[in-house]
This record gives sequence, C-alpha cells and structure tokens, in this order.
Amino acid sequence: MAARDELDDTLELAWSDRLAAAESMIPIIGRLHRESGVVVSLHGQPLLGQSPIGIVKAHRFTRRVEETEVPLVETLAVLTELARADLGPASVDVAELAQRFRQEGGGTTLADYLRDEFFLAGRPAAAAVEAAAAASSPSSKQDVVLYGFGRIGRMLARILIERAGAGSTLALRAVVVKRRGEHDIVKRASLLRRDSIHGPFEGTITVDEANDVIIANGTRIQFLYSDSPAEVDYAAHAIHDAIVVDNTGRWRDRAGLSQHLQSSGASRVILTAPGKGDVPNVVHGINHELASGETIVSAASCTTNAIVPVLQVMSDRFGIRHGHVETVHSFTNDQNLVDNFHSGDRRGRAAGLNMVITETGAAKAAEKALPELAGRLTANAVRVPTPNVSLAILHLSLETVVSRDDVNAVLRESSLSGPLRRQIDYIESPEVVSTDFRGSRRAGVVDGLATIGTGDGHVVLYVWYDNESGYSRQVVRVLREMVGGDSVTIPAPRATALKEGVTA
Amino acid sequence: MAARDELDDTLELAWSDRLAAAESMIPIIGRLHRESGVVVSLHGQPLLGQSPIGIVKAHRFTRRVEETEVPLVETLAVLTELARADLGPASVDVAELAQRFRQEGGGTTLADYLRDEFFLAGRPAAAAVEAAAAASSPSSKQDVVLYGFGRIGRMLARILIERAGAGSTLALRAVVVKRRGEHDIVKRASLLRRDSIHGPFEGTITVDEANDVIIANGTRIQFLYSDSPAEVDYAAHAIHDAIVVDNTGRWRDRAGLSQHLQSSGASRVILTAPGKGDVPNVVHGINHELASGETIVSAASCTTNAIVPVLQVMSDRFGIRHGHVETVHSFTNDQNLVDNFHSGDRRGRAAGLNMVITETGAAKAAEKALPELAGRLTANAVRVPTPNVSLAILHLSLETVVSRDDVNAVLRESSLSGPLRRQIDYIESPEVVSTDFRGSRRAGVVDGLATIGTGDGHVVLYVWYDNESGYSRQVVRVLREMVGGDSVTIPAPRATALKEGVTA
Amino acid sequence: MAARDELDDTLELAWSDRLAAAESMIPIIGRLHRESGVVVSLHGQPLLGQSPIGIVKAHRFTRRVEETEVPLVETLAVLTELARADLGPASVDVAELAQRFRQEGGGTTLADYLRDEFFLAGRPAAAAVEAAAAASSPSSKQDVVLYGFGRIGRMLARILIERAGAGSTLALRAVVVKRRGEHDIVKRASLLRRDSIHGPFEGTITVDEANDVIIANGTRIQFLYSDSPAEVDYAAHAIHDAIVVDNTGRWRDRAGLSQHLQSSGASRVILTAPGKGDVPNVVHGINHELASGETIVSAASCTTNAIVPVLQVMSDRFGIRHGHVETVHSFTNDQNLVDNFHSGDRRGRAAGLNMVITETGAAKAAEKALPELAGRLTANAVRVPTPNVSLAILHLSLETVVSRDDVNAVLRESSLSGPLRRQIDYIESPEVVSTDFRGSRRAGVVDGLATIGTGDGHVVLYVWYDNESGYSRQVVRVLREMVGGDSVTIPAPRATALKEGVTA
Amino acid sequence: MAARDELDDTLELAWSDRLAAAESMIPIIGRLHRESGVVVSLHGQPLLGQSPIGIVKAHRFTRRVEETEVPLVETLAVLTELARADLGPASVDVAELAQRFRQEGGGTTLADYLRDEFFLAGRPAAAAVEAAAAASSPSSKQDVVLYGFGRIGRMLARILIERAGAGSTLALRAVVVKRRGEHDIVKRASLLRRDSIHGPFEGTITVDEANDVIIANGTRIQFLYSDSPAEVDYAAHAIHDAIVVDNTGRWRDRAGLSQHLQSSGASRVILTAPGKGDVPNVVHGINHELASGETIVSAASCTTNAIVPVLQVMSDRFGIRHGHVETVHSFTNDQNLVDNFHSGDRRGRAAGLNMVITETGAAKAAEKALPELAGRLTANAVRVPTPNVSLAILHLSLETVVSRDDVNAVLRESSLSGPLRRQIDYIESPEVVSTDFRGSRRAGVVDGLATIGTGDGHVVLYVWYDNESGYSRQVVRVLREMVGGDSVTIPAPRATALKEGVTA
Repeated sequence: MAARDELDDTLELAWSDRLAAAESMIPIIGRLHRESGVVVSLHGQPLLGQSPIGIVKAHRFTRRVEETEVPLVETLAVLTELARADLGPASVDVAELAQRFRQEGGGTTLADYLRDEFFLAGRPAAAAVEAAAAASSPSSKQDVVLYGFGRIGRMLARILIERAGAGSTLALRAVVVKRRGEHDIVKRASLLRRDSIHGPFEGTITVDEANDVIIANGTRIQFLYSDSPAEVDYAAHAIHDAIVVDNTGRWRDRAGLSQHLQSSGASRVILTAPGKGDVPNVVHGINHELASGETIVSAASCTTNAIVPVLQVMSDRFGIRHGHVETVHSFTNDQNLVDNFHSGDRRGRAAGLNMVITETGAAKAAEKALPELAGRLTANAVRVPTPNVSLAILHLSLETVVSRDDVNAVLRESSLSGPLRRQIDYIESPEVVSTDFRGSRRAGVVDGLATIGTGDGHVVLYVWYDNESGYSRQVVRVLREMVGGDSVTIPAPRATALKEGVTA
Repeated sequence: MAARDELDDTLELAWSDRLAAAESMIPIIGRLHRESGVVVSLHGQPLLGQSPIGIVKAHRFTRRVEETEVPLVETLAVLTELARADLGPASVDVAELAQRFRQEGGGTTLADYLRDEFFLAGRPAAAAVEAAAAASSPSSKQDVVLYGFGRIGRMLARILIERAGAGSTLALRAVVVKRRGEHDIVKRASLLRRDSIHGPFEGTITVDEANDVIIANGTRIQFLYSDSPAEVDYAAHAIHDAIVVDNTGRWRDRAGLSQHLQSSGASRVILTAPGKGDVPNVVHGINHELASGETIVSAASCTTNAIVPVLQVMSDRFGIRHGHVETVHSFTNDQNLVDNFHSGDRRGRAAGLNMVITETGAAKAAEKALPELAGRLTANAVRVPTPNVSLAILHLSLETVVSRDDVNAVLRESSLSGPLRRQIDYIESPEVVSTDFRGSRRAGVVDGLATIGTGDGHVVLYVWYDNESGYSRQVVRVLREMVGGDSVTIPAPRATALKEGVTA
Repeated sequence: MAARDELDDTLELAWSDRLAAAESMIPIIGRLHRESGVVVSLHGQPLLGQSPIGIVKAHRFTRRVEETEVPLVETLAVLTELARADLGPASVDVAELAQRFRQEGGGTTLADYLRDEFFLAGRPAAAAVEAAAAASSPSSKQDVVLYGFGRIGRMLARILIERAGAGSTLALRAVVVKRRGEHDIVKRASLLRRDSIHGPFEGTITVDEANDVIIANGTRIQFLYSDSPAEVDYAAHAIHDAIVVDNTGRWRDRAGLSQHLQSSGASRVILTAPGKGDVPNVVHGINHELASGETIVSAASCTTNAIVPVLQVMSDRFGIRHGHVETVHSFTNDQNLVDNFHSGDRRGRAAGLNMVITETGAAKAAEKALPELAGRLTANAVRVPTPNVSLAILHLSLETVVSRDDVNAVLRESSLSGPLRRQIDYIESPEVVSTDFRGSRRAGVVDGLATIGTGDGHVVLYVWYDNESGYSRQVVRVLREMVGGDSVTIPAPRATALKEGVTA
Repeated sequence: MAARDELDDTLELAWSDRLAAAESMIPIIGRLHRESGVVVSLHGQPLLGQSPIGIVKAHRFTRRVEETEVPLVETLAVLTELARADLGPASVDVAELAQRFRQEGGGTTLADYLRDEFFLAGRPAAAAVEAAAAASSPSSKQDVVLYGFGRIGRMLARILIERAGAGSTLALRAVVVKRRGEHDIVKRASLLRRDSIHGPFEGTITVDEANDVIIANGTRIQFLYSDSPAEVDYAAHAIHDAIVVDNTGRWRDRAGLSQHLQSSGASRVILTAPGKGDVPNVVHGINHELASGETIVSAASCTTNAIVPVLQVMSDRFGIRHGHVETVHSFTNDQNLVDNFHSGDRRGRAAGLNMVITETGAAKAAEKALPELAGRLTANAVRVPTPNVSLAILHLSLETVVSRDDVNAVLRESSLSGPLRRQIDYIESPEVVSTDFRGSRRAGVVDGLATIGTGDGHVVLYVWYDNESGYSRQVVRVLREMVGGDSVTIPAPRATALKEGVTA
C-alpha cells in the first residue's frame, strides 16, 4: 500500500473542505429561495438546486472572471449574511457582491456593507419581509399558458418548473394541446419526463389523469384539449390575464395570433417563432423593452437570438460594413426521416442522410433588431445530421481594422460583464464540439479559438448555440420582461465602461 | 392574476417541505462519508453527491419497492441517528434500516434499534472510530492503476474519482498510456472532462503538465508514459502492490497479461475484456468470489455482464433448456467510420451506415459462468448505428411452464432485493428507448413491458445495458472484491426467500 | 514500360471478347422486349436494360447455379434463335433453356429444340405473332392507379415504369395525392427523380404541369388531386376497371378500402400494408392464388413477405415446433426525427438516436399465411438508426434434427430453383452488411454464413430485406397475379424434386 | 381496359424508338473503344459502358447545353461514320462534332466534314490505324501503382479499371499494402467489390490468392506486401518506370515521398493529399502543366480541387478582393466513432454525433495555385455527420459589381464549355441535397439556386463536391497529364470567347 506524498494529502483535504463548505451552503441557498424569493448566483452561474460538486464547479468557473477562484468560505460568509438580512425577492450575485466589498468595502463589516448595497439596489431590508410575502403568494404571479407542447413547449415547461417557487413572478398554469388518443396526458407526461437529447426531467412528475393534470416538482399543470386557440376556457380553471406562449408556429401574424385573445382568461401572446407583419421580434438583451408594452410579440428565432447580441457588440465596437451569416443547423422535426413531400424546397429530403441548403430569415430579423445593419447582411443555412446544437458562422467586414485578439477580448468581456452577459457566452477550449453546448443557457457561445481575423478588417466568428435550450431561456427572459422586468438585481449594476475597456 | 385552488397550494407546500428536508440531509450525508466512510443509499439509490432534487427523486423511486414512498422525514431521522453513532466505514441502506425498524423494532427507540443493527452487521460502535480512522488513512487503500485510457479507462476513472474519499478502499493512483504528442496530458484531461455521450465531468480537473499529473476532484492521478506493460516503474511514484486494470485489450491470456506483473509496484491484473485460456472471467454478483484469490482476472465483456445475472435468475427459478442471445449492440471505436480494412469479418464496413452481423463470445462466456447451461446457449450480435447502450434479447426455452407475469415478477423482485439487485434492474415504462439507459449503474435492465411469454415455456426477455457505464460499474465492483470485499453492509442481509416468493 | 506476361493478355482479350458479346446482345434483348413482349433473364438475373458490364456480371452470377459460368456465346446463340422465333409475350430464362438443351437436347439442333420447348410452354410459334400484337396493344393492359405517392408509392412507380412496354400486362395510368401547394406536381416529379436511398431515376422525367401529367420513360402518368378515395373520377381520364394500389395505410379494413370502389373507373384494390378483418394478406409465392379472385387484397407487410417464404421452406422440410422472429428494422417516416408525440408506444422518440422496441404483427400474419404454424410463432421488432434494409432473425425449434449445412443447402437451393426462387435469395459472403442489400429484388436474402445450427434442432436464420424495394417487387408480383397470372414462362417448370434433393 | 389517347401512344412509341436507337449504338461505341481506342461522349457525358437508358439520359442532358435535345438519330449517324473512319485513340465529343457540322458544315457531307475535322485534330485517318495499334499494345502504356488502398486508393482503382482498354494510356499494374492477416487479399477484394457509399463494383472481380493477384474486369492487379516504400521490387513483376500513387498520406514532403523512387521499377510519385515544402500542388484544369515535368507532385486536397477552378473563373471575370471559404465537410476515417485520442484538435470527438470545427489548408493551397489571390483568402471547415459529399461555401468580395444572375451565367457557361468544364459542374434544381452528388465526376458543382448576390459586390457561392469520387477523377486527370497529356480531342478546341460572352 502506498504512502502518499504531501501534495496529495493537501489536495484531498482541500477537496474535502470544499465539498463540506458546498454542502453547508445548500440548505441556506434553498431557504433563501423558498422563504424570501432570493436566487443566488456566482458571476452568473446559478447556485440554486446544485449538487455539492456543482457548487464547487461554479466556484472554479469564477477564475474566468476574476484572477483567482472565489474561495468557498467567502461565498459561505456572504450567504450567511444574506440569510440574516430579511431580504425580499431578488437576484443576488454573491461573487460580485464580495468583489465589490473587497474593492469598495473600506473599513466596514460585510454585514454593514451588504445592508448598504441592498439599499442601493432599492430593496431596504425593512420592507423586504412584506414584499417577500406578497411576491410569494400565488395570487400575485403572472399566469402562463403553453399553447403547443412540442420541443420548445416542453423545454419551456422544464425551465418554468425549475424556476417555480417563492421568487418567481411566473406561474405555469396550463398546457393546451389537441387530444390525440385515449391516454393523451400520460404520453405528454412521458415526453416531459424523458428526452433523448436533454435527458431525464430533474424531479418528479405525477399524472392525475382524471383531472387532466400533471404535477411536476409541485407545479400543478392543467392540460386543456382544444383544436382552436379562440375557444379555450382558461377562466374556468381559474386562469386569468394569462400570457399564452404559442409554440405551434401555425399562426405568425397579428390576425392569427389574436385568436388567442378571444379565449376567456388570456390577455397576451408570445410566439416562439419569427413573427410576420407588424408583430415585433423581441431578442432579450437587445430590444426586450418592446415586450412590456405589447399584447402580441414574437421571441424571434433561435438563430436570430444567437447572432444578434454578437452582431450588436461587433457593430458597437468596430462597425460592420457587411456581413454574411452561414448557419450550420441541426435538423428539426419539420424535416423528414426519409425523402418525402415537404412544402419547402429541399426540406423533404432525408434529414439524417443529407446536408440540406435552406433559406433563413435570420438576416432580415437581425436587421430589424439592429437597424444600423439594414441592407448589410445576408444569411443562409445548411441543415446537417445532428439532432441539436447549431453553429452560426459570421463573416464580417468591419469598419475598423482590428486584430483577432482584440475581437476575442471584446467578446470575452461581453460574456462576463455588461448588458449582454446573459446572452453571450465565450469559450476558449481546443477540443469543444457541438454536443458540449447541449443545455447551454445563453443565446450563443463564441468559440474564441476558432475566430479568424486577418488584421485587415475581415473577421469570421463561430457562435455555437443550443437551438432548443438556449433559445428557450431567451423566451423565458422575454416572458419575465412582459411581467414587469426581472426581480431586483443585487448588486445594482454600475455604469460599465465596455467601449473603452479593451483596445485602449 | 389567479387565485389557486387548495390542492395546488398543498402540493407546492409539500414540494417545498420535501426540498427543505432534502437540503438539510446533504451536509449530514457528506459528513458521514468524509469523516466516517459511511455511504448511504435508499433501497439501492445513492444519496451521496446528489442535488436536493436528486434526493427527492431517490425517495420517489422507493414506491417501486415499498407500497408507499419513503417519507423524507423518516430518512432524515435515520441520518441524524447515524451521524451520532460514531460508525466506521459501511454501506448503509437507510430505507431498509427504517423498514426493518418498522417491522422488527417492537417497542425500542430508533437509536437503540440502530445500535443493535450495527452490532449485527459486525460493526460495534465502540470499535468504529478507530476502524474509520484506519480505513480513511491513504496508506490503507489499495493502489489502482489504469493501463490504457480509452472509453472504459475513462469511465473507470470517473467512477473511481466519484467514489474517492474516506470510505473508499480503492485509490486511483496512475494512468499508463503511450505518449502521443507534446501536450499529450492536456488532451487526456480534455477527454476526461468532456464526453459526447456521458456529458461533462462532475467536478473539476486540473492539469499539472510539468509533473504529468491530473488532479480531478482532489484525486491526484500520475500519468506514466510507456510502450510496454513490463517496464513501468510504479514504485518510483510510491505506488505499491497495485492492481493494474488493463483497458487496452491487447493481451488477453495469462502470458500477455503477466507482463504487467514484471513492473515494479504492480501485483495484480484485471482485464476489462473477455479473458482467454485459463484467465477466469468474473461477473460480479455471480462468481466474484473468484476475484479475491487470483492474481490475474478478467471482468468478462459488457454483454456477458448484462445477461449472466438474468440467466442465473431464470435458470434458478425456471430451468433453462435452451437459449439464444441476440444482441443489438451500439458501434464501438474498433469499427470504421467509412468502409476500410478490418481484420474481423464485416467489422470494417461503415459503422454509422450499416447493420453489421458480428460474432460474440457471450454465449461461451455465459456458459463458463453458469456451468449448468453448458451446451445450451447460442449467441450472435448485430451492430447498429447508435453510439452507446445495447440490447440483449434472450430467447429461452424453459423447463417450467410459466406465465409472462410470473417471469416479470421474479425479475422485478431480483432487481429490488436479493443478491443480484446491483446487477439487475427492471423497468416497466411504455415509452423507454435506448438513450434512456445512458449512465445506468447496473449491468442490465429488464424491459418488463417487452417480455414475451406465451405460457408454453418459451420466453423472450429484453435486457438493456449501457455497454460503457453499466459494465464499468461492474468492473469497479470486482476491483473492490479483489481488495477484500465490499465494506460492511447495514442492515446485514437476512436469508432471502426468493425462490418461494413469487409463483406460490 | 512493361512487357506483360501471357496470362495478362489472355485475360484482357477474354474481357474484351465478353464485352463485345454483351454489347451485341443488347439490341437483340431490346427488340425482343419491344416487339414481342419477351423478357429474357439468366437463371433469374434480368438481362433487359443492362449495361454491357451488367450483362457480363449476370453471366458471372450463374456460377452460383451451375458448376461453371454460362458462356456468353451460348447466351448469344439462344438469343439469336429467340429473335427468329416470332415469339409472343413470355419470360424466357436463357440459361435454363440452354441447360435443358444440353441435358435433353439429344441430337436436335438448338432451333428445333427451342421450337419444341416453346410448344411445351403453351406458346406455339404460329400463334405467337397475333398474341404478341394483342398483348402489346395498350388497350389490352390492366390500368393501375397509385393512391398515395410516399416511399412505397414511388418505388412501385419506378418498377412499373421500368417494366412498361410491349410485354407488360400492367399500365401505370395515374397517381392520386392531396394537393399540397401550387407546384405540387413539380415536387412529386422531383421526389421520383432523386432519392437519397435508391439514387437517381433510371431514365427521363418530364412534367406537363398544365395537364397534371408526368411522363417518365415514355409512360404518361396522370396526377389526380383528391382528398377522398370515393370521389376520384378515373373514367374522365379514360381509366377503366383500374386496380387502385392504396399506399396511404389510412384504411386497412374492407369498409375503408371499399371507398375506392365508389370512384368511377376503379374495380379492385390492393393495400400495401397488412390488412385488417377479412381482407386477405397475400404473399407472392405462398398464397398469391388468393389475389386473382378477390376485389380487395392486402400485400401484407415487408417483414411478412421477407419471412414467410423462408418459414414455408423450413416448415416443409424440417417442421417447425416453435419460432421467434426478431426484426432489426430500419426507421420509417412514421417515426420522429427528435422526440415528439406519437400515438404508438415508443415510436415518438428520436428515430436517428435510439434503438426502439416496437410491436409487429408479423407473427400473426405469418401464421395466417402458413396455417400449420398457428400458435407457434412470436415476433417483435427493434427499430434502429438505418434508413433502409432490415434484418429478420428467425430462431426456430425444428421437429427434425438437422445440421447447419443441411439447412443452408436447402435454403440455397430454394433461392436458385423451385417455386420460391423469386422470393428467397441466398448469399454466402463474409463481409456483407445491410447497405449491400439496397435494391434487392427478392422478398428476403438468407445470410448463409450467419446461420446458427447446433445440430440439436435449434436453428437461427438471418434474413436481410430491402424493406422498400424487395417489398415493392412483391407487390408488383401480386398485381400481375390479379391480372391473370404471369406471362408464359419458358422453359416450362418441371416438377421439382426439392424435398428429396438435399439431405439424402 | 383503357383506350389510350393519341399523345400517350406517341410518347410510348417515341420512347421505344429512342431505346432502340440507344441499343443499336452500344456495339458501335464498344467497338470504337476496344479496337481503336476511341472514347465517345456527348457534351461531356460519357457514352461508353452505359445501359440503353443511360444513353437516352445523356441525350436528355444536352438540353442544358443546346437549346433542344440532341436527337439520337444524329448521334447514331455520327457514330456510324466514326466506325468507318479507321480512327486512332481519341476522345470524340459526338454532340460537339454534330453541332459544328450544322454550324460550319456548309454543303459538305457528314463523312467529308468529319474527315476534315479529324485532320484538324491532328489525327489524319491514314496514320490512325498504326497509331491505334501502337497505343493499344500493352507495352506502350504507363504502369501505375497504387501505394495504399484506402478510400481514395480504391476509388482510383475503380476509375482506372473502368477506363482500362485500348485507348487508355494508363495501366493499373499493382497495389502495395501492409499485410494484415492471412487472407489479406480476399478482404481487399471484398472492399473493392462492395462499398457502403459508392455501391457495388461495376463488373467482376476474381481473386488469385496463390499469386496475390486480383483480376477486375480483365485488369490484372498484382498485390505487393511491404512496410516500406523504398523496398518494393516492382521490376520483379515486370513493372517498369511506374508512377506510384501514394494514398497513405504518411509522407508529404519531398524527402518522404522520394523513398518510393528507391524501389526498382518506380520513377515518379503522385501524392493524393496536399504536399509540403516544395512539392507542387497540381489542380487539373488550373496548373496541370506542372505535372508533366516533375518527378514528385501532389494532387492537392479534395477541397482545393473543388474551389480553385471556381475561384479562377470568379477571379478572371470579376476580380476577387477578399474571400472566405467555409467548408461543411463529411467525416473521414481519420476521425473517431466515439470520443478518443486524436493528435489534432477536436478531431478525436465522436464524428457521427458532432459538428467539429477543424482547420483546413485549402486557403493557402488555393493561393498557391492562384497567386493573384495571395493574402486574400481565409478558410475553415466544419465536419458534420455525413459519410460523403461536402459543400464549400465561398463568400467573396468582388472588384466588380455584378448581379447574381451574371455570376450564375458565367459559372453555368464554364461548366458547359471552356477549359474548366471537366472541373466545374453547375446545377439549378430546387430539391438537390448532398447525396445527389454522390459519384459526381467533376471537382465541384455550383448550386446556382443557392447563389447569393446582393448586387454590391458581395457574392456567396455554394459548391458541392463528392470528396471521394470527384477528387479521384481529378487525380486520374493529373496522372494522364503526367503520361503526356490527354489523348487527341475531337473536335479540336476553338479559341473560346468566354470573357466577353456573358455580361455583354
């Protein structure tokens, strides 16, 4: 048997200590969420619901943002203070709080510093308890209905269930589908429970077939069977003023989508596909303010959500003369397994056997969201035999001569701080391939090592995106925007100095 | 906004309470493992390392075994007592303990009952502290070396790292590979970190390139570069009496595998492929007692591990006259992407495009492990274009006339209790397909709804298995057996009455 | 530069001579078909429409049947005589004729022998010219309509077009589909022209969009747009007494299929899927005589067609006590690309990513076709990610103890002569995989090298089949049966002595 | 039964007549090839070796070039004259000859016109017989050896065997491989005989295992087993002054490839992969004149061959300021089926499950072949899960403002006439996908309907290519160039006026 060297023991001990610290955080994180509606994260990495190792991994990730890894003891200290603070619903980034405390804390104690910071964020501790009570009462939440329960519908359900609870402003109340057979709801539950791509549901699902109800992690979801969007009686199920999320793609203009509003209990509509006519396409991070005032909005397409934030950064920082977006896209259920009729060109050919050139509205949608690019973008797509995760290739002629490194630095920074950090992710890893991005929460992930920049103003960017999960997260962000914006964010964002930051 | 009905609130509360209970268990479960080497489970479902929802799911699973779900408060109560008990290294099934207490506890308190039970299990509390101290000292662990770091090698590394810690009797010390380029170890770490099939590594991986070391979740793994099994100097790295796990498949007989024993510091060999000649094939659950006395053993093949436990149950209960095993098997890296030379018949043809008939030694290996079946089995396999998870189809002519339901009842029971419950799983779900079994920990999973039984002695069984992860778990079980058997099991197994149980 | 050795020159010369002979056959073969309706083959291999090399390959194949390869000069001699013979429509197997002439010809000349043989076959030369004239007039052909134009519909169209011409008794007149967009017929033509699995159409396709007509190799196909089988006005397009081939699978019982008969111009129906209720399932080679008297028949399923002929041979020769059929089946368009709703169990899960266990009616259908097996067969299927070609695995317990070699010998012989030689093919090749069987013309191909026989009455057979093309050929054989049987076969079949042949 | 309308009969007759004409051409085409070394084509479509329907299809294709389809009777007339002309080895484009005769023939007879044309082409009839005799003697051919027998090696073998015969200047004499097992040559033959992608071999293959010889369609191929390129004794097998085609990719610089020249009997080397250092990369159609003078050349990569001809046309006609080439590429055997070690970045990850970003040297290779583009191109590639056929996407900033239609017109014309018509193909078909290009003979096929041109100088072109067969055809063209250029081409090319042709 072996006598280990010193380093080894140190490491093992360190790991034990870290696990122990992570374990002790879990009840605090859970209680903050359940009792006060506080959702904690670490430089954007969620801590809620993680396993002990998941919490250690989130800490390790912080090396990407700060120079050294955030110590678990620091996080534990902040969490302990948060637990004492009688906070109301808020999103709290523990690492940013701690970082600010180090930078700005001066001689104050952590407890004092936090109290001030909460106050800055517009959430004085005194008022918090009541606010929390009010927010966590079911009656104060926005009712949400999923109309259609296909790939995006089910992804949205998983996200809304995961985020149900005290702090959430959204309540998934119902799903509307056509009845397709006797035990329809059992099949729907099964599709929610197991997924060939995204794996098993995180939690428990119970079917109350007599009442057409699925209970998932405590969320009670009424299934309503209907063939017409205008004739669903939401009110009969105590659903009121609901936002209907239309995942069918069957209607894409105002007239078609307005049908939902004729149903009793429905008051707004969000389409999870590009809108037609005057239906505004909302990309969270870019123009989400549009969402709050409208009755009918579209959340645009997965590709549009993936590329527009990156284009915005590139346009702001370097100016875009002209660009072409080529998307290498996973197949989707609207194609065929083996050659058969399809109303669209080439789309009828066997999806698992072919590269299929296909038109995309992503360029026009991007130009709509970023008017300064009008007339400067073209786009096309090639469908290939992967079941999920796509790659947008942005070939840009810039107005500024920049180096490849400068471009990457700007995109990396955008992924870590600034207004688009929930949309843009950035990775530099020499071995990543498409499946590694399965389950990604951001709209797009820049593959920094693939970036091409010749120093003459031509740049090629490679942006990965999970066309199911990344997009669905964006849809939920728009939903929250429609309800009145996100919850309070702590620490409150300071004015960023992104533009000057990198090339100076 | 909606006013929710009563049921809804109840459910949400219940879910909150369950999450809270699960969260409060996590530090206790962690401490029991780290400080006392106690690994807790719930009717076989591991609790260690789970997220809060994972713990709730494990409770929900218990409905399969008991009539109602094990209440989380009950688990919490038992865990609390365990934490007080100064136990030494042991595997504790909390649900079985609780179940026995209900059945046998009479008037005693839980604390008293547990003390007696620990005593029964051969682990009096008085001796436990010392035992724990001894067991958790690194020097008392068995050094393990992975020779080859392909699919099985990396799966084994993931499992050994996951189970490192106080209670473990195995210490993964080194990996031996051929050096293939300058930054070889960086690539090895990357392959451990991300996997197209099994997803990201659960934890953190650091590379110490100067010392050829990878540190994964605190486990320090020395990489040794060698072209010959006989010339590795393990001792120079303070590795002694190691078990070498040969994952290369290059040598399969005693002469070839004995080369490992010429290296300083290696004393035993386990081959993760079927052995040739007199190398015994060990299937955990069937003949693992062979492993403890031998210097060189084979862990047989993934298919053999999947089918032999099921065949044993069927043979014991119903007698097998004759059987044919047809395996629909995922492709493996030894095939080709597009047609090219391969020394085996048909194996050279494009694996992603074809069904490929291929011979398998599974029948002979099964007959070796179950001598009563000698001459009664045939087997063949068809490789198909899936990357993981396989399906063994067992067509059996039985000596007993049984109904389909009886067969399923016996197999279901074997998966829940009895000596093969870690090898056999059983599922009845009308929508499951191969990817749902990715990551399965058992050697094989019987698909009860697919079972065919005509009542005339002919039965067809469908056994799913993750040919990578299910098999690797079996290999680790054999490794533990080689070290001296599993740790103490609490509650101690009672004599089972399986044979009489079902058909009576 | 090289001086070649003798052998080399010989070979090249030989190859040149063979090509020259093949080329000179081509105009004769074509003229025989066009002017006299004579279709020539070589031990079952078609010669019509082949390239010169295709004709040489057909000769090479004959080594499987005779001891040596049939010489091309012999074929050329017979063809020359046939061209002089003023034959009427007939299927002439040149190699069998030549073989018989060698065996039975005695002192007669080939010309004399052939004249006698034609007479035996019921086609005296004197009457042939008139008969040929009558048969080749379009008005004497059976009108055929394809209802539905999916995978099987298009395969049938390709076969019927390939076999249009003087000798054919079937005239493909129309295709009925739902109109799906403005240029529907252009898309239909495109799907006929290019296929991801079966490759480009052999010939030329023209679209007459104004008249909804596709002209393929001279065959004029009227496209009719309809949503109801009962309301198609075939008569308006001069289509009378048509056989409607229903490829939609929407109706499978007599009531549903009878709707077709309400359309003017339709008089019989054949369903290309298993029938329900009292609709007879016809497997050509087994019970095709059923087809001639019925108004509504089913051509059973692809799997049923693949296995029943083999089961019949095995039953006739060895007796079947019990059997289980496990089909490893390519996915079909009724499954989904990624998980989504499907009314059938498991069928909704991603077809390209999973093995999917699925029920099959093949056992019951086989028992219906072979009543002596009633109650003795079970069957199941596993769908896997290949787009075409399937594998039926037949595990049989026989009443007779036979060796593996005897079983193979019987199946091989059945593929070369005897009543099922158009249904059963047999191959012994150590490297064949599923794609090699793409385009197979027979219902099933026994993989002789895979056969398992332990000599104790248990046998496992592996039967490949192109579930699209092999099945479609069987459907066309049933169609011809409905019209009044195949054309005259020359030489006339002698009574075979199959039963005694092999094991003696 | 139906009375057909007039049109129908007409069509069927027409089709019959066309088939009859095609059939009667086949012996003439074959004899011209075998006896005179004359290879006939129809606007570039090969006629040799076709089935009757293949010949009709080739005529139908001519509508793309001329306004109406070339009549089969015209072709037959020209072929008849050719057969009388005692021509020697030549490539004769029958359609171009006929077209010229119509345009230039004046009052002469076809026979007279042809005689003049042959004279113009430098092949007076008088000398032809001798020349033919000389050329068709085996001793006058260039010996070719394939070193390595993987995907490209076998494709080259198929092409060289197809084109063996009187007119060919190349003689495939031997294949060199490492011996991998006892019946190595049987496996090699099997891989040549059946291919999962390209289908069965067109012809017959015999193995003479005793002599390590494969005879394919009369071509005798000696298999030589060797581990070293420098130690093969070609001369011992009467192979002299051979060109060795290195398909292994193991050596890519002059030093490595020069090893082949140390073997007795080898005098030149062509590498079927991009060369390193000073080894010239030859792209046929662009710089093939390099091939004739060199001892060691590279045939560049499949992607380079696909894009350079198109880039040349675009550069010549419109000027290229800057371009980016993104290749969506099928996987190749150097990737892995499931994640495992690979020395290249990302290449080790599962090829059938992932999009894999990968570097390509295509930009540098293209700049080398087209020096005017130096410093103006970038390139990258994404490997996707298709087994064959790739798509190069060329995003070009042009010096000239052109419309999309002008670009397409220029590319279309280049595919039909001019010096690059054997390299560039052009298609406008709204339903084509990657598998439709399987077996393509050209280096690249422009997908005209996908072309993007915004009229501001930015153009995106989509170029399909069969990365196996299209490339291999280019390699054979380079081989012929090394032997002394192609055979005589009739009619002799006139000076083309391509530059002025289209935009004027």
